[in-house]
Amino acid sequence: MNLKVIAYARNGHTDKFGIPRQSREESPIVTRIVFEPEYAVPEALRGIEGYSHLWLIWGFSECMGEKEASPKEGLSWSPTVRPPRLGGNKRMGVFATRSPFRPNPIGLSSVRLIKVQKDKVQGSQAGTREGRLELIVSGADLMDGTPIYDIKPYLSFSDSHPEAKNGFADDAKDYHLEVVSLPSLSCCSGEYPLFASCDIDKDIEKDILYILSQDPRPGYQDDPQREYKLDYAGYCVTFVVEDTRVIVKNISKI
Amino acid sequence: MNLKVIAYARNGHTDKFGIPRQSREESPIVTRIVFEPEYAVPEALRGIEGYSHLWLIWGFSECMGEKEASPKEGLSWSPTVRPPRLGGNKRMGVFATRSPFRPNPIGLSSVRLIKVQKDKVQGSQAGTREGRLELIVSGADLMDGTPIYDIKPYLSFSDSHPEAKNGFADDAKDYHLEVVSLPSLSCCSGEYPLFASCDIDKDIEKDILYILSQDPRPGYQDDPQREYKLDYAGYCVTFVVEDTRVIVKNISKI
Repeated sequence: MNLKVIAYARNGHTDKFGIPRQSREESPIVTRIVFEPEYAVPEALRGIEGYSHLWLIWGFSECMGEKEASPKEGLSWSPTVRPPRLGGNKRMGVFATRSPFRPNPIGLSSVRLIKVQKDKVQGSQAGTREGRLELIVSGADLMDGTPIYDIKPYLSFSDSHPEAKNGFADDAKDYHLEVVSLPSLSCCSGEYPLFASCDIDKDIEKDILYILSQDPRPGYQDDPQREYKLDYAGYCVTFVVEDTRVIVKNISKI
Repeated sequence: MNLKVIAYARNGHTDKFGIPRQSREESPIVTRIVFEPEYAVPEALRGIEGYSHLWLIWGFSECMGEKEASPKEGLSWSPTVRPPRLGGNKRMGVFATRSPFRPNPIGLSSVRLIKVQKDKVQGSQAGTREGRLELIVSGADLMDGTPIYDIKPYLSFSDSHPEAKNGFADDAKDYHLEVVSLPSLSCCSGEYPLFASCDIDKDIEKDILYILSQDPRPGYQDDPQREYKLDYAGYCVTFVVEDTRVIVKNISKI
């Protein structure tokens, strides 16, 4: 089957470092799903506002790398991958993970629908049949520019299994880090506002705090000296991780 | 993106009439997910038994028809479809439905994992690298022969939203019909065994009762005279529907 791109995701994750590893209800990160001109037809969304959650089916195109590609002899794919949450050195079957390194690099994310946004273009422009059409959603684990192949309503009676057993991913359920900043950053500590004196948009601050709390380090790294850089929504955040604490060392506009 | 078929679904739904409209936890229908030779590699499932539920991403190939294809002028797809649960005569946006008639005909189903089945072939046969490899699952809404493109573990902390609002599909949540049989079928009525004297495998009987209770009629039909035929697992079941009751008139081995 050959998939056509119907939309692209747009958000602050212009770099792959820091993208949440799964979609999460509690994530404050807002993503715009911008329909391609061929699919920017408002009727195609008729009735969607009755749903609180949606499924996005998307492509891992930008995240694909070569480092995991160690196919068995005679195969064009790798049957096992190293999930970051297991430390990155234990191999699991690719179909027992949500890894991007799979035979068909399709991603699946449930998101919360915030609203439908229609900007009707006056007059007819080439390629803008109905003007700009977007879905505004939260909780996605997508990079800016991710191609979207399908959007479906979330049906609780079909899709919700709160008692499902999460296998080896169960530890990931409540895992998070505390986030603090250096006194030299001249910001107060505490949940919000961590970067109070840094003149940063409050929504972006919330997003950055969430991303850091989710531990964006590659799984196999645990070096308290190592400095990491997160690029998000036009800001560069420098931090280290000591045990279960993220210590923000600097934040600056790019 | 070009998708490769990694497996095919095998079950009693050799005809599209009667396929459940969504995957359901309570469905007794068992489906075998039979990996293609290239993907019949047991390591690719390492760790999967720790999960109670899986996602299947699959293709609507067999279900695609022309009857819904009424694209708007200048479009190669139809922005609206007629969901059977709304009676089949009301149009909704395709992205607000789980209809097969969508720009990319991808299906999404959560299923319960029963077990992994490995039948190691002795010696090496052409195209059977590791012998037969299957996942046995229940609750799927797939036709026999459906191509499978991806299998992912179900993660309750990401995927489960029991409080999600189901839009216009909410009525479908608890909708079902009562199933009875004609006295002339010389079977007793009641939940099980409906076809007690018919010498039918008990598992297939359970499946047929479930399928009938889900109302397999096309949405826009409501004629108590009309006789329907369900072909399932080698049986042909003839029935009519009066109000909220399915009346089985005959059952025979094909």
